[in-house]
Amino acid sequence: MMLDNIPSKTVAKAVEQLSSLPSIGGKTALRLVLKMLRWDKEQIEAFGQAFIDLSNNISYCENCYNLSDSKICDICANPRRNAEQLCIVESVKDVLAIEATQQYKGHYFVLGGLIAPLEGIGPGDLNIEALLEKLDNKTVSEVILALNSNMEGETTSYYLHKKLKERCSDISTLARGISFGDELEFADEISLGKSILNRTPYQSQ
Amino acid sequence: MMLDNIPSKTVAKAVEQLSSLPSIGGKTALRLVLKMLRWDKEQIEAFGQAFIDLSNNISYCENCYNLSDSKICDICANPRRNAEQLCIVESVKDVLAIEATQQYKGHYFVLGGLIAPLEGIGPGDLNIEALLEKLDNKTVSEVILALNSNMEGETTSYYLHKKLKERCSDISTLARGISFGDELEFADEISLGKSILNRTPYQSQ
Repeated sequence: MMLDNIPSKTVAKAVEQLSSLPSIGGKTALRLVLKMLRWDKEQIEAFGQAFIDLSNNISYCENCYNLSDSKICDICANPRRNAEQLCIVESVKDVLAIEATQQYKGHYFVLGGLIAPLEGIGPGDLNIEALLEKLDNKTVSEVILALNSNMEGETTSYYLHKKLKERCSDISTLARGISFGDELEFADEISLGKSILNRTPYQSQ
Repeated sequence: MMLDNIPSKTVAKAVEQLSSLPSIGGKTALRLVLKMLRWDKEQIEAFGQAFIDLSNNISYCENCYNLSDSKICDICANPRRNAEQLCIVESVKDVLAIEATQQYKGHYFVLGGLIAPLEGIGPGDLNIEALLEKLDNKTVSEVILALNSNMEGETTSYYLHKKLKERCSDISTLARGISFGDELEFADEISLGKSILNRTPYQSQ
């Protein structure tokens, strides 16, 4: 193996670290590190420092478990957002994705995962206790379950709905249907079926 | 864009650094950093430290420009390797690739690139002066040009051959031919042509 022969321990260490990232194998990591060796010293140092900083400074919003540099994240702290609307998502990535649509002005709650019995992840491993506590103590008029439509997402939605229905009367989930730009003949049957069942009034632009 | 909304400056910085690597885009970088946030603090710190170390400790062999923790690399320092054989390669990666074959027991010389007029890389940007000096001062009985068979590689081989032929009488280049396991009907014409022209005596295993 090429990787066993790297003639510098420092380089070997950097390659090893980079290949510990998901989807980056040893050969790719070696290629990337050799590219980095053409950077300025300062540039490589800044690269490393960014992750040292990451290890020291990472913190989550106490209110919604979103990433945040302060105790309360910008979304929770924004008085113009509707605190009575609560969108429940799996991860920070989903907050970013929904924020990018600019269509939602309520608050979020990040579960930190999905119930996945096969991987040994139960409700106790997620932020569900904190979620229930939040609903007990604050006025939330609408809950949106914005979880992925895979097995784990459906399981988690089902579990949450059972727990939440006595605490909130308005629980919705994301609309499923064919995507914008999809051609009907190539759409999968479940999505096309959902989009007929859940058809919406026509609105001219 | 999702990346504009990252709610933590530290995370945004790490994403930015990671996406400065070739072939890693913003979305991939974000996905990787969010995965890292599930690591232990120590693990993230070690990741960063590896690159801080890289920026401080990287050094090259004074003799062959291979990566090396010491002034002279393990290959050049090894008395059992033939110092009169010199294999000229483009980069450290190529040294690793040839070492992995375990078929070569001579020394190397790393050019640090290939002549590429379109990218503004001329002979002066490579370690060619040092190579000529080496051949003037040390006994080298055989030079192997082990450069890629693309336009830049061929140009560089041609240039080097002109410069080296008065300094060394035995200059060879890598054999080209169809690869081990290739099927003849699918091989490209140039490789198949070369492998007929350069046919070798049959040896039973």
